[in-house]
Amino acid sequence: MRTVLNKMSSTTRRASATQESLHRIFTIPEAPDSTLGVIEKEMSENLLGFLGQHIVAVEKPLNEIEKDFACSALPEEPEFVSDHIHHLLNKLVAQSVHTSSPSFIGHMTSALPYFILPLSKLMVGLNQNLVKIETSKAFTPLERQVLGMMHRLVYGDNDDFYQQWMHSANHSLGAFCSGGTVANLTALWVARNNLLKADGEFKGVAREGLFKALKHYQYDGMAILVSERGHYSLKKSADVLGIGQDSVIAIPTDKYNKIDINALADKCQELTRNNIRVLSIVGVAGTTETGNIDPLMEMAKIAQQYQCHFHVDAAWGGATLLSNTHRKLMAGIELADSVTIDAHKQMYVPMGAGLVVFKNPASVAAIEHHAEYILRKGSKDLGSHTLEGSRPGMAMLVYASLHIISRQGYEMLIDQSIDKAHYFAQKINEHPEFELVTAPELCLLTYRYVPKEVQAMLEIASQDQIEVINSLLDKLTKFIQKRQRESGKSFVSRTRIEVNRYQGKKVLVFRVVLANPLTTKDILNDILAEQCELAKESQKYLPELLAQVAKASV
Amino acid sequence: MRTVLNKMSSTTRRASATQESLHRIFTIPEAPDSTLGVIEKEMSENLLGFLGQHIVAVEKPLNEIEKDFACSALPEEPEFVSDHIHHLLNKLVAQSVHTSSPSFIGHMTSALPYFILPLSKLMVGLNQNLVKIETSKAFTPLERQVLGMMHRLVYGDNDDFYQQWMHSANHSLGAFCSGGTVANLTALWVARNNLLKADGEFKGVAREGLFKALKHYQYDGMAILVSERGHYSLKKSADVLGIGQDSVIAIPTDKYNKIDINALADKCQELTRNNIRVLSIVGVAGTTETGNIDPLMEMAKIAQQYQCHFHVDAAWGGATLLSNTHRKLMAGIELADSVTIDAHKQMYVPMGAGLVVFKNPASVAAIEHHAEYILRKGSKDLGSHTLEGSRPGMAMLVYASLHIISRQGYEMLIDQSIDKAHYFAQKINEHPEFELVTAPELCLLTYRYVPKEVQAMLEIASQDQIEVINSLLDKLTKFIQKRQRESGKSFVSRTRIEVNRYQGKKVLVFRVVLANPLTTKDILNDILAEQCELAKESQKYLPELLAQVAKASV
Repeated sequence: MRTVLNKMSSTTRRASATQESLHRIFTIPEAPDSTLGVIEKEMSENLLGFLGQHIVAVEKPLNEIEKDFACSALPEEPEFVSDHIHHLLNKLVAQSVHTSSPSFIGHMTSALPYFILPLSKLMVGLNQNLVKIETSKAFTPLERQVLGMMHRLVYGDNDDFYQQWMHSANHSLGAFCSGGTVANLTALWVARNNLLKADGEFKGVAREGLFKALKHYQYDGMAILVSERGHYSLKKSADVLGIGQDSVIAIPTDKYNKIDINALADKCQELTRNNIRVLSIVGVAGTTETGNIDPLMEMAKIAQQYQCHFHVDAAWGGATLLSNTHRKLMAGIELADSVTIDAHKQMYVPMGAGLVVFKNPASVAAIEHHAEYILRKGSKDLGSHTLEGSRPGMAMLVYASLHIISRQGYEMLIDQSIDKAHYFAQKINEHPEFELVTAPELCLLTYRYVPKEVQAMLEIASQDQIEVINSLLDKLTKFIQKRQRESGKSFVSRTRIEVNRYQGKKVLVFRVVLANPLTTKDILNDILAEQCELAKESQKYLPELLAQVAKASV
Repeated sequence: MRTVLNKMSSTTRRASATQESLHRIFTIPEAPDSTLGVIEKEMSENLLGFLGQHIVAVEKPLNEIEKDFACSALPEEPEFVSDHIHHLLNKLVAQSVHTSSPSFIGHMTSALPYFILPLSKLMVGLNQNLVKIETSKAFTPLERQVLGMMHRLVYGDNDDFYQQWMHSANHSLGAFCSGGTVANLTALWVARNNLLKADGEFKGVAREGLFKALKHYQYDGMAILVSERGHYSLKKSADVLGIGQDSVIAIPTDKYNKIDINALADKCQELTRNNIRVLSIVGVAGTTETGNIDPLMEMAKIAQQYQCHFHVDAAWGGATLLSNTHRKLMAGIELADSVTIDAHKQMYVPMGAGLVVFKNPASVAAIEHHAEYILRKGSKDLGSHTLEGSRPGMAMLVYASLHIISRQGYEMLIDQSIDKAHYFAQKINEHPEFELVTAPELCLLTYRYVPKEVQAMLEIASQDQIEVINSLLDKLTKFIQKRQRESGKSFVSRTRIEVNRYQGKKVLVFRVVLANPLTTKDILNDILAEQCELAKESQKYLPELLAQVAKASV
């Protein structure tokens, strides 16, 4: 009896402790000298320093890290905030990736301006939901305005146009979304629904689905055409939309990684002849791997000829439009029916800010939907024209960045990034042990380490010999890239791309993205020097390569 | 000549000023006494106070607010951070919605625990991209662990199960996403692709699309069955997936807003007879409008019988599983093939945290995709099984909340919310001037203001009279709800629902969600009192209603 009583009272005690700690976390702020308070201060005062100090440089193998995240049981009892934060710092932050480091030039995530941190806190504190005005109020017109600005950046319509459409309930100049994938998916969804629209008895693909739509329109299939450098999200979109991945047709590229326009025209003709309807031609404005831009003007003409949707995936390159120096690279983008731009890439906004703009403000009617409690007809709720439902107020961060950085500021950032890429390309070209594989058009380039004897050999080798050498070089490139990443000083990524001078065969290359404004020329030189050192550490591939060269020269 | 020189030098001066301000924003932190520094401090010390002080209570009409967001031109020159922040405070924050106010009980967004603010700042500062390990490292096992915990919450498999699958490269226990809509879409995408899988010559719907899939499987169509209370995202998903909105078949509900199980069984039989393949039966666990839960166990049996995917949309109600007191309400959820849960609803995480879990860790193989530079086969990159590409590290916030609040803490929060709803329902029932339309099962309820004379009249009126009265009551409800919102002290939402006692006709009701832990009983009583006052201010509908009653009693 006594034990039962004791047990009960201990349960009651625990419950009341939980109750108290619950009340605290909702009502009592973290004190400035609490663990979280101190972290906030450190981040506010010196973000790079904070990250540099807390993120462990030398890489721990993933399976080691997984041991810290192995328990599937739900925590039964509350943990003190400060204890948990120490745990996060030791186990999570320490083993995260220093994406804003100036020497991490392998991905599209870069440094953020300082004002973004407190503004993000404000965004979270306000916790608006952009799906409807009732939970976002002024954030709705703000998001519409940002979409208007981005639309104007692409299409440059006049004041009257924006006056008329920017805040119109039944129109939308675009859609904010979590990222480029959803942006591309939204664009192709709009394209599909507009093409297979209601017609006579047929109520449209949105209502009746693709099976009935193709039967009604008597097509034997559909196709989306994009260069072989197109982003994988297009195949994913085709899968989701019920069109099928195989309907995404990869058109070959020229030696500058741009779509072969004749091949595109031929393919359109062939498909049309076979009663396969071209749904959309997709131009790439900044390929993910090489940063090259398709000939958009000529692609637009073909799209016009085949009366299909012309989408431009400018998730990476779109921000280039902010530079008067370089926006000519994107000529023709204003002819696109829709354009994807990721603000979380070259617009220096944190992860989670993609968008798509539509030339015709009425085209989103094809994906309009309503419900009883929100998105009522005639309301200006943004959620009636977006793929996502509840969404955070990321538009505020884009809005603030556009004002604080301004067009001129973005121009400088973009111009400097491209200049830096040209500088790096020149260094690679001048260096005896490196081969520049793709030259920069925007701030991306690819290259690899090739010992000079091997370079000489590649010039004169037979096709078979080249394949043997490239296969060894692939291994060496992978070795260097992994070692460099693991040693934690710097990071370039790697990818495989078809290279014209090797008969279109794929080779493994280092891929570099130079968008971080804090990356200096010294850092770039150090990265090359480190790669040379690492190559020499390779006990296997480098000797094998040199043996190949020796054998061939016999 | 002189003017040209002057102009040039002023351009150069401007450029160098822009250059300098750019350098500042990337390298110099906001000082503690800067505008942003002060805002941060205020938010850290007293978030509710900060919001209460900066958000203007009395509503400004939307068309007035739009005037502040009317310019479509891109800002050409940089603005000082502090100037811009003042602008944001005055024009945006002032006119945003106080979603965390304890008296705003009309939406599903509520107060956040204090630790969330600094942690969100940490998340943004780290700026990880969860699409791949290279840009997220420890965040990837962390997200997999959170999915494991949520999977265990739903399915309760044993340690061995989670040991085997949680960190397996080619499996996934679920997917994080921006919200419930993408979660539902992902679940139905998996369901579609698994049903219409590769078979003989046919390479599967993912590759060949729906048109060929239905031809191959010789179905005349597909269907998704859900109660008439199902969320609008299901129709949207059916549209996106190419199945068509009309294929979402709304099954009637009983007087408790639960699916009529016989009607569901009959419809399945009818569809099957007509060669329409039932793709999925969707159970609702917490309807958006009334918070009721479908009979999941019985639905699972029917899904089993028709060999179709059983999805449960528990975007709202899923967190109830954390309460041992109430999880029995969700009995049968463990039989679902997939379950949607929004962490940004009853798990008190900020906007942007939805997820879906899958019973079978292999089922996501149906939506697997790869690319050259990331998501290589065999890698553990999360992006190979998600609809979205680049994604932020929201999983950290769910992880921290699960540890700091813990299961017991969530149980208390959920139990208290439901208790509060029962208290409010009782108050409404006891009050002579209100009609409880739907009683709470979770913490949602709906009701309306009905003067007692009118209530008496409704008991005895003819069908025609009831319709006239309800139509007037609808106008009165709308009037009260709008006035209450505009006056800014409190907020309930409104929706239209079919009401059993009015022959299933739709009536307009107040909708209340009682998830904010800071909402007190006093606040609830004040809301009722305010609504009574507002009703009396109605110069039109209340007199008309009373006139109707007088007329009828003659």
